[in-house]
Amino acid sequence: MQVLDSEFKPGLAGVVAAETKLSRVDGAIGELIIAGYPLEEIAQQASFEEVVYLLWRGERPSESALEKFTSALAQHRELPQATLTLLEQIAVQKKPAMDALRMAAGTLDLDQAAKPAEEAAIVILARLPTIVAAYHRLVNGERPIKPDSDLSHAANYLYMLTGQRPTKAQIKGMETYLNTVVDHGLNASTFTSRVIIATQTDMLSAVVGGIGALKGPLHGGAPGPALDMVFEIAVAERAEGYLREKIERGDRLMGFGHRVYKVRDPRADVLGAAAQKMFEEMADESPEGFELYKLALTVEEKALELLEEYKPGRKLQTNVEFYTALLLHGLGLPADLFSPTFAVSRAAGWMGHCFEQLETGRIIRPKARYVGEINSKW
Amino acid sequence: MQVLDSEFKPGLAGVVAAETKLSRVDGAIGELIIAGYPLEEIAQQASFEEVVYLLWRGERPSESALEKFTSALAQHRELPQATLTLLEQIAVQKKPAMDALRMAAGTLDLDQAAKPAEEAAIVILARLPTIVAAYHRLVNGERPIKPDSDLSHAANYLYMLTGQRPTKAQIKGMETYLNTVVDHGLNASTFTSRVIIATQTDMLSAVVGGIGALKGPLHGGAPGPALDMVFEIAVAERAEGYLREKIERGDRLMGFGHRVYKVRDPRADVLGAAAQKMFEEMADESPEGFELYKLALTVEEKALELLEEYKPGRKLQTNVEFYTALLLHGLGLPADLFSPTFAVSRAAGWMGHCFEQLETGRIIRPKARYVGEINSKW
Repeated sequence: MQVLDSEFKPGLAGVVAAETKLSRVDGAIGELIIAGYPLEEIAQQASFEEVVYLLWRGERPSESALEKFTSALAQHRELPQATLTLLEQIAVQKKPAMDALRMAAGTLDLDQAAKPAEEAAIVILARLPTIVAAYHRLVNGERPIKPDSDLSHAANYLYMLTGQRPTKAQIKGMETYLNTVVDHGLNASTFTSRVIIATQTDMLSAVVGGIGALKGPLHGGAPGPALDMVFEIAVAERAEGYLREKIERGDRLMGFGHRVYKVRDPRADVLGAAAQKMFEEMADESPEGFELYKLALTVEEKALELLEEYKPGRKLQTNVEFYTALLLHGLGLPADLFSPTFAVSRAAGWMGHCFEQLETGRIIRPKARYVGEINSKW
Repeated sequence: MQVLDSEFKPGLAGVVAAETKLSRVDGAIGELIIAGYPLEEIAQQASFEEVVYLLWRGERPSESALEKFTSALAQHRELPQATLTLLEQIAVQKKPAMDALRMAAGTLDLDQAAKPAEEAAIVILARLPTIVAAYHRLVNGERPIKPDSDLSHAANYLYMLTGQRPTKAQIKGMETYLNTVVDHGLNASTFTSRVIIATQTDMLSAVVGGIGALKGPLHGGAPGPALDMVFEIAVAERAEGYLREKIERGDRLMGFGHRVYKVRDPRADVLGAAAQKMFEEMADESPEGFELYKLALTVEEKALELLEEYKPGRKLQTNVEFYTALLLHGLGLPADLFSPTFAVSRAAGWMGHCFEQLETGRIIRPKARYVGEINSKW
């Protein structure tokens, strides 16, 4: 087998491994296109169901198609009994939520016969939030709450987490978050899913692989401790002193800067606007939430000002983690639910990429260069 | 982010994605090197534990190091109770063995605290055979058999499958098989494991991803129906007529030909020799096994002769699936255990690649080319 191009590409950096119609990330101009639509066009206007349909089928659904799709998703939310039993046992061990999600997700088609990829995808997407919510409650000593098929995907997720019917503002906040992070080019977890499905294995194998990759600390996008700084600062007056000290110590400011986006991350803009709207609408019922929101804005403003002072020209911007943390915190989600909630959305992107990959009919199989010995004797 | 090389590489064909000291596949000359050793040097001489140590640490173990490694593997074979419970529930659904393996493997560290990669790898490798054997027995209505830490990895696997102490010939047959398929360049499942671990996630996530990829029909190497033809032929006299009819109908002869190897697959040679030895040594206790072996040789000889007659110059050779099926069948394994048994071995290769990938410290993240619309309005 003669192979002409065999230069080693560490990390496959710069190599184009797929063609996609799902999303385009242009870091230089701060733009994210989702299936043809600039993110700003759809993040707050579309429902999550509409965005998923768009990603999976390449076009906006008609009203009746959307109704059918929404209903199919809503009908498949309940977990197999074996998955619930497993979640109870994982909760006893108090495993991190992402580990629980990976383990339980692997079993979520246990009550299903083998299905064509798109039918399998609906069951998987429908059930991931149920797993996350059930585990969250179990690990906190509460009973899981059965899904309500009358609620939208986003609303039902919040409902299963808290047992409370979410307000419109909360639903819109969650939906905007899910829409915003649903796809983002060929990141490591999305690539994982494509590599797996390219063998023509089942959809769930690809999603479980994606969850495993997403768990890794080098995988960007899943929000972590971006808000901790805000909590530590606690009052606006302390912001400048705290931040100066941190920067002078050489610490990185979590929530600022991104590998790809050299200007402002468009997702940060969208989530910032969604957070503003949500916190304002909830100001009466949750004045302390609104206070935290204002504090976060002060910290952000001060941080950007000081970053420009200490690192002029670097143009470090608020990233998606900062506003994700703010928004999800405002929705009552503790930080250990941030990554699983990210997965609940991104799984739709993974599976959209899987459909594309399946259409190519090709396996993904690069080469390795052997650099060891060749003639050892045992 | 300026990217110079952005030619689309469908399937990443010809792209070098990793440097490795684990194995080199040279299809043109029919050679497979495992960590410096030509396969023929180690397949029958080394124990599986020695081969794994060699792959993971890059050198043959000293006697004391081997003892320690063997004992560590032997100590970790028992499954968490939750994994056994899950296997029972999967068996009720009669899921295929590879699905059961993927699901149960995902939970096999449930009783373990987070561990450094190499410690985690030992637990995973130790327990995969226990899962396969337990599920096989459960799905056939039998109780799982507890592992015996006095037996070697290969011997214990056979013991857990059958409840019988395997003979020396059987152990050597299984061990040769495990050694032979332990690593084979950057195939799709191995690449999957590398992509996942490159995010610095946990080892089990990488192995579960590998199992998911291995399940796919486009993933070569896992033996399927290669022996069915031999069973259908049943008596030597029917071989020629059966094969002529099949070739003239345009059917592919399972067990012959390989994408990579243009001459004889070295694994086929090694497994052929192992099968011969095993069937001869077992001829007294299992005369019908020896008869089947002789029939298979007749079928092989006739198939190669006819392939040369009908497709001159194609040089189709007996592939690894043919001798795998023969050897594993001779060990009493039904065909649905072939792929899981392949995974039991290959997982060691996956994890060896994971160690290498972790050492690079790099994430694997190629790019996608966006080919969709860019300015749609919602």
